Amino acid sequence: MTEVTLGIDIGGTNSVIGLVNKEGGILAQTKVSTGDFPEVPDYVDAVCAAIDGLMDQAGDVELKGIGIGAPNGNYYNGTIEYAPNLVWDGIVPLVELFGARYPVPVVVTNDANAAAMGEMIYGGAKGMKNFIVLTLGTGLGSGIVVNGDVVYGHTGFAGEIGHTIVEPFGRDCGCGREGCLENYVSATGIIRTIQEIFADRRDDSTLRQLPQSELTSKAIAEAALDGDDLAIEAFERTAETLALSIVNSVAFSSPQAIFLFGGLANAGDLIFEPTRKHVNDMIQNIFENTFEILPSGLKESDAAVLGASALAWNELDK
Amino acid sequence: MTEVTLGIDIGGTNSVIGLVNKEGGILAQTKVSTGDFPEVPDYVDAVCAAIDGLMDQAGDVELKGIGIGAPNGNYYNGTIEYAPNLVWDGIVPLVELFGARYPVPVVVTNDANAAAMGEMIYGGAKGMKNFIVLTLGTGLGSGIVVNGDVVYGHTGFAGEIGHTIVEPFGRDCGCGREGCLENYVSATGIIRTIQEIFADRRDDSTLRQLPQSELTSKAIAEAALDGDDLAIEAFERTAETLALSIVNSVAFSSPQAIFLFGGLANAGDLIFEPTRKHVNDMIQNIFENTFEILPSGLKESDAAVLGASALAWNELDK
Repeated sequence: MTEVTLGIDIGGTNSVIGLVNKEGGILAQTKVSTGDFPEVPDYVDAVCAAIDGLMDQAGDVELKGIGIGAPNGNYYNGTIEYAPNLVWDGIVPLVELFGARYPVPVVVTNDANAAAMGEMIYGGAKGMKNFIVLTLGTGLGSGIVVNGDVVYGHTGFAGEIGHTIVEPFGRDCGCGREGCLENYVSATGIIRTIQEIFADRRDDSTLRQLPQSELTSKAIAEAALDGDDLAIEAFERTAETLALSIVNSVAFSSPQAIFLFGGLANAGDLIFEPTRKHVNDMIQNIFENTFEILPSGLKESDAAVLGASALAWNELDK
Repeated sequence: MTEVTLGIDIGGTNSVIGLVNKEGGILAQTKVSTGDFPEVPDYVDAVCAAIDGLMDQAGDVELKGIGIGAPNGNYYNGTIEYAPNLVWDGIVPLVELFGARYPVPVVVTNDANAAAMGEMIYGGAKGMKNFIVLTLGTGLGSGIVVNGDVVYGHTGFAGEIGHTIVEPFGRDCGCGREGCLENYVSATGIIRTIQEIFADRRDDSTLRQLPQSELTSKAIAEAALDGDDLAIEAFERTAETLALSIVNSVAFSSPQAIFLFGGLANAGDLIFEPTRKHVNDMIQNIFENTFEILPSGLKESDAAVLGASALAWNELDK
C-alpha cells in the first residue's frame, strides 16, 4: 500500500487535484472547473467525486492528508477569506468542509506558501531551513521559510512581499494602494515598464508595432533575445527593482536561497543575470556570498499540485 | 537557592553585567570597561572576576546560563564577528571563552535580538509569538520574532531592518552603502533630516541658532514640544519613513506588535502619533487592525541586561 497525500490547487478558473507519493511522484491527476460552482457545497461535492475517482485510478494507496493551495488561503483558520479572484464571497471554511468528508489532516494556505513547501519537500530547497520563493506570474506571490517553517505570522497572511511598497506614490495596485512591488516585478509589471520606456525613449522597437493585446511578457522576452534595446532595458529595470527587494528581504530574514518561479522567471538569463548583478552591487557586506538566486527546481506544470501535497506531508511530519 | 541567569551587554565603552531571576529582577549588577581591554583574554578575566563578585553579592543563587548581547554577535557561531565599534578585530569566540569558565549554556546574539528576547520574557511582548522590536538609537537595530523564536536566518545575521534600503542613492550609511533606513529613522537620522529641512525651508527656527554639536534628537524633540514648525516637520518626515518600513515589515512577517525602543522612541507622542497615522494610511487592507505600535515595556536602563539574561532563559526552555 503506497502512502499518498492529495494536493488541491484552487485557481480562479480551474482546480487541479493530484495524488502524490512521498517522492513527489504524481500518481493520478485531474481537474475540476472552479468557476462552474458558484455554491461552495456543490464545489466540494464535485471535488470529492474527483478525489474518489483518483483513488480508484491509483489503486492500492492510503490517503494520509490533504493540502490545499488557494488565493487568500489562511493556514490558521483553515479558510479562504475574501479572495477577489474566486467565485465565492466572504469566508470559505475549506478545512472543515473537506475534513468532514475524509478522516485525515487537511491544511490550507495560499498558493505561494504552497509553492515554497513544494520547493522544500520536492524541489531545489531540499534540506534548506531558510529560503524564499517568489512566484512571478500575473502578480508576485511569496513564500518565506524560516527555521524550516513557512512564516504565517500573527494573522496567517504573512509573506506578502509582492505588496511591499517599493515606490511611494508609484503605480496603482489591485490592493488599492500604490507602488507595490508586484506592479513592477511580474508578467504584468514588465508590460507597464515597457510602456514607461516607450514614453521615456524615442528609439525604435519592434514592440511598438504590436497591438496592446499582444504586448506580453513573452513578447518582450523574445524581443530582448533578438537584441531589441527597449526590451532589454525593460528587463534591466525589472531586475533592478527585484534586486532591491531581494537585498531588503535578505536583511530581514537572511535566507540561503531565493527561488524565482513562474512566467517572468522563465525568461532565464534575461532576468537572472541583471538581477544577480544588481544584488551584488547592492548587498550589505555581511551578507555577501551567503545566498543564491536560483530557478525553481519544480516543473511548472506540476508545481501547484506538488506544493499543495507537500503542505500535507509537512503537517504529518510535525 | 534562587535560580539566576547572567546577562552581559557588551558596548563599545562599557559592558554591563547583571544577575537576573526568572521574574526579571536584577539581583546584582556591575560594569566593566570594554575599552580598557584591547586583548580579549584580559577582558574575559575581568568579566569573570566581576561575575564572581556578583555571585558573592547575590548570596544563595544558582547560575543556570549566560546570555550575551553584543554588536555583530552571531548566535550560531557563538562569536562576535568584525564589530566596527569594538576594540577587538576579527572573530571573538565568546561562547567558547565563557563556556570554559562556567559549566552552563552560554548564548550570544546582537543587542537588538537580545532586546526582542527581553521584551518577550519580561516586557510588553509576554505571550506574543510574532512581533518586532526596533531600537532607535544612534543607529536602528531590529529583532524579529516569528513563531516565538528570534529570526537568525541562514547566517545568524538576520533582522537588519535598519539596513533595508528605503531611498536608493539616498543618504550614505556606515555600512558603505546608501539609503539605509537607519540614516533616516534614528537619533542621528533625525539630525540629518532637520538639516535637510533647514535647506528646504526658509522659516525661522530656534534650532538654527544652535551650534552643530548641540543639534541633538533631544533638542529637536524639545523644540517640537515648544511648537517649532521645522522640528515638528522633522518628526513628521521621520515618522513617514518609519511607517513605510513598518508597513513593509508587516507584509513580510505579519507581527502582532511592533515595539519602538531607545532614544527616538522616548519622544513619545511626537513620534508615535504621526507614525500610527501614516501606517493607517498605508497599510494593506488584510493587515488593518491586526497589530499595534507600542513603546517597549522595559525600563531603558535595565533593558540591555534583561535582554541578555532573557536569551539564556529562552535557551534553557528549549
